[in-house]
Amino acid sequence: MSKEIDASELMSLCKRRGFIWPSFEIYGGVAGMFDYGPLGCSLRNNIVDVWRAIYKGREGFVEIDSETVNPREVFKASGHVDEFSDLITYCKECEAPFRADHLVKEFYDNPDVLTPKELEEAFVKHSIKCPECGGDLGSVEEFNLMFKTTIGPGSSRVGYLRPETAQGIFVNYNNLYRYNREKLPLGVIQTGRGYRNEIAPRQGMIRMREFNMMEVELFVDPEDKDWVRFPKIENEMITLVPNTTCEPVEMTVGEAVEKGIIANRVLAYFVYTTKQLLIRLGIDPARLRFRQHLSDEMAHYAADCWDAEVLLSYGWMEITGIADRGCWDLSRHAEFSGQDLTHFKKFDEPVEMEVEKIKANHKLLGPRFKGQAKDIAAAMESADPKSVVDGKLIVNVNGEDIELTSDLFEVVTVREKIAGKRVIPHVIEPSHGLDRIFYSVLEHAYDFDEKEEYTVLHLKPEVAPIKVGVFPLMEKDGLDECARDIYEVLQSAGIESYYDGSGTIGKRYARMDEVGTPYCITVDYETLDGDTKGTVTIRDRDSKNQKRIPVSDVKAIISALISGDSEF
Amino acid sequence: MSKEIDASELMSLCKRRGFIWPSFEIYGGVAGMFDYGPLGCSLRNNIVDVWRAIYKGREGFVEIDSETVNPREVFKASGHVDEFSDLITYCKECEAPFRADHLVKEFYDNPDVLTPKELEEAFVKHSIKCPECGGDLGSVEEFNLMFKTTIGPGSSRVGYLRPETAQGIFVNYNNLYRYNREKLPLGVIQTGRGYRNEIAPRQGMIRMREFNMMEVELFVDPEDKDWVRFPKIENEMITLVPNTTCEPVEMTVGEAVEKGIIANRVLAYFVYTTKQLLIRLGIDPARLRFRQHLSDEMAHYAADCWDAEVLLSYGWMEITGIADRGCWDLSRHAEFSGQDLTHFKKFDEPVEMEVEKIKANHKLLGPRFKGQAKDIAAAMESADPKSVVDGKLIVNVNGEDIELTSDLFEVVTVREKIAGKRVIPHVIEPSHGLDRIFYSVLEHAYDFDEKEEYTVLHLKPEVAPIKVGVFPLMEKDGLDECARDIYEVLQSAGIESYYDGSGTIGKRYARMDEVGTPYCITVDYETLDGDTKGTVTIRDRDSKNQKRIPVSDVKAIISALISGDSEF
Repeated sequence: MSKEIDASELMSLCKRRGFIWPSFEIYGGVAGMFDYGPLGCSLRNNIVDVWRAIYKGREGFVEIDSETVNPREVFKASGHVDEFSDLITYCKECEAPFRADHLVKEFYDNPDVLTPKELEEAFVKHSIKCPECGGDLGSVEEFNLMFKTTIGPGSSRVGYLRPETAQGIFVNYNNLYRYNREKLPLGVIQTGRGYRNEIAPRQGMIRMREFNMMEVELFVDPEDKDWVRFPKIENEMITLVPNTTCEPVEMTVGEAVEKGIIANRVLAYFVYTTKQLLIRLGIDPARLRFRQHLSDEMAHYAADCWDAEVLLSYGWMEITGIADRGCWDLSRHAEFSGQDLTHFKKFDEPVEMEVEKIKANHKLLGPRFKGQAKDIAAAMESADPKSVVDGKLIVNVNGEDIELTSDLFEVVTVREKIAGKRVIPHVIEPSHGLDRIFYSVLEHAYDFDEKEEYTVLHLKPEVAPIKVGVFPLMEKDGLDECARDIYEVLQSAGIESYYDGSGTIGKRYARMDEVGTPYCITVDYETLDGDTKGTVTIRDRDSKNQKRIPVSDVKAIISALISGDSEF
Repeated sequence: MSKEIDASELMSLCKRRGFIWPSFEIYGGVAGMFDYGPLGCSLRNNIVDVWRAIYKGREGFVEIDSETVNPREVFKASGHVDEFSDLITYCKECEAPFRADHLVKEFYDNPDVLTPKELEEAFVKHSIKCPECGGDLGSVEEFNLMFKTTIGPGSSRVGYLRPETAQGIFVNYNNLYRYNREKLPLGVIQTGRGYRNEIAPRQGMIRMREFNMMEVELFVDPEDKDWVRFPKIENEMITLVPNTTCEPVEMTVGEAVEKGIIANRVLAYFVYTTKQLLIRLGIDPARLRFRQHLSDEMAHYAADCWDAEVLLSYGWMEITGIADRGCWDLSRHAEFSGQDLTHFKKFDEPVEMEVEKIKANHKLLGPRFKGQAKDIAAAMESADPKSVVDGKLIVNVNGEDIELTSDLFEVVTVREKIAGKRVIPHVIEPSHGLDRIFYSVLEHAYDFDEKEEYTVLHLKPEVAPIKVGVFPLMEKDGLDECARDIYEVLQSAGIESYYDGSGTIGKRYARMDEVGTPYCITVDYETLDGDTKGTVTIRDRDSKNQKRIPVSDVKAIISALISGDSEF
């Protein structure tokens, strides 16, 4: 494996061979935007399919797809309207915009914790000028990173492009809870676009204005943070960087929970699931670790949070975050929407307990409200005593709010058999940056032999965009027709293949190796005649070994190789 | 089949069972926006997979994925900045916005061809007032339907959410052409979001502000509008509504081309491919027709255009359009970007012909431009004589524009061997409204028995969201464990399954029938003992027939039923 990977060389391969293209190049391009070409689109879809196989297939989670344009209310509740911003400064001369913290990063370990005032002082102290023209920098302000738009005519209804797919799951909690027949745990996945209107994006695919996510939101009983399949993985090893020591340490998943390093078993299970996913996609285990958020890095509501980090040419880079978000998300949306977003947790047996109840004064209600009295009394007695404010209670009957003075009811304490209680589910969130995973898979698969000037992408067969190259030795004598037939059989079985009839066989192998195609099939004269009639050569990318197999078995053999059911 | 389908009843089923939810309901909702719930998301993904199998698998097209936020330049070139609008009027009293043409639709057959002035006159003539408050209507104006935003800080770079996925393919033409090793035909597909900021969306999933498309752009040689697989389908029947008679007529695809009803063979092939796709997805052939655009309906650049229309409870509704767009798209982007977006078409043999060339006057150039003279002469001689304007030629040398007067060159006619010529490819575009197809598949699968109050969705096994319901007769005696095992085997093989252990078996069948699950497996006491040990019951949704099959064969039998390799 080549240790020296040059990101710009890999990006140039990506562009040349149709993995990734900078967007809108014919119009001069837009920073932080990339299009997925034919090979990139296939590779990315294959990554999503593996993630789906794990979360939908193995864990039985459900998938939804929600809107990318959201009304302001959603992101007011989620906190993005107020908090999702970077600090910006403009050059006073040339008016170029900059991320203020990036300008001082050589002087501070953690420049993103500096306030606007501290940054302005840092500009003076370290004589920082505009990197473009040398001009003076202006004041430091907050810049909200959501793309803003308006929904419908007029400018009254503000909308934003979602900065994450997660909110679409939270606002559908009640629908999902009903779909799950009002049971927990409730696991939901979503893949799709997220948007972040970066001030000045750099670093290729690492920081994109329009990016792809695979998010998982698992709603669990706050009093039961276990997972049914935990025992299956508790003895597996994992590399952790706890926020206490900040040093990498290897231990079993079970140990990490017992020692209190990972907060609970369900979180630990999905930290390990993330390891399984990333390794299955082709991430090098030696370049993968799980780093716990530092206390000042963790969101105030998070009980615990771990980043899957991979070693790239850019250094260690976060590609997935796995957090225990507590009840934060549902609490906020319940508060801002006024809806009940809870789980009714049945006790094993009904419990007798003292509860406060509202008792209506029927004698006074009857004369005062006549025909409405019965409905009002019912509404009062099902109301929460906590909703009595300043001795008054407001109930809604047939669409009308009715205010009731303290003479009309009393709050009494009664003993009742209670079947269960309402709890706000906690959320375990494995959130995957799909583009970063895509890029990491390519970097870890990349191998360049400097002497031979030969590039191979050692992509796992399951994710490789093209599974098989199909070559006729020569494009004549029926070899081409036979090869075309094999190509069509494979393609119609959903096995992505590439027919190539031009250049030497060596050149054709090289073209396939460079895009990570694991197998090549060659139809030669031996396919047509003699003892070997009806057989073709299959070649393995990584070992470069070749063997002859019957044409009639090609589909089955390739399928088994891709699924891992057999080895070359 | 129930002939009377009520769209609101179907939408209520969709909502209740988790196909489709109105978005942001907890915040009061936003018109024209829907989220795909668990069953809807699966059904939609399955539809996309069938489309992919046909275009990527069978036809060998490539798939890309481009950005949804595009800079203004793209839609200036495509015409959307100037043309993509509806006519709007606001009530002078309550300020409610309306689509002006919708307000007069009972008085005109084709109100969307009326000008703003004609609409204002129509309001007066027919005494049309605000439908909300009865107030007077204001003037009629154009309202651009693209969602607008800004890219990066400041407001200088205007961006729009794409109204179609197609432009992302056109602007990548050069990348795609290189990927295809500079050959035509070049077929490209893309699925993803499109956006249309409707004035006042109605009609459920038919008119959405955020919608899903499956678009196909096939670049062909303008002089070769044939298709290699055309002979395979030329004798197949199709229902056409030509714009000459406007009456439905049945004929073969071959006949339609011979009689000049469909403009050419490649267009006809993809009209028929659309029929294959829609029927495979479950559209009722008796409720499907292909209607040719009327001449005033067709885009001015389109050579021919057909809509796949299905009969829904809303009436006949367009769900896919198949157009020959000529060279319009690439010409426009070439013009606006200044890039060469052509195909180099090699002649079978080089042709000797007279061509005009620029000949530099080296004697004058040397003294006048000194060291630069050689570079300038080279640039002049490779310039197109057509770029001489008013006797002057401008060439760019090392980034500098140099103007050359007529004494410095002459235009001469020479005989040259020409290997080929540059042509602008034509585009054949089958463009699918994914949400409309999704909704149509549901309507055509919907069957309600009024007597029994029983709903069945007769979804094709290939697209059904859940393939198998797995039931233990009772949740005890090991029946539940056996059923869980079967469920897990199916799920990990990628066969979406649903475990259900509660209620009578009849109720569980009904729940599965209502969401279109084609097969159910029941584990009973006979599974555990006696002659039938190791067998389970499989039940077919449509015939309601049941038979016993070995547990060990469940996966293979279900796979074969779904793929259509075997019948129940």
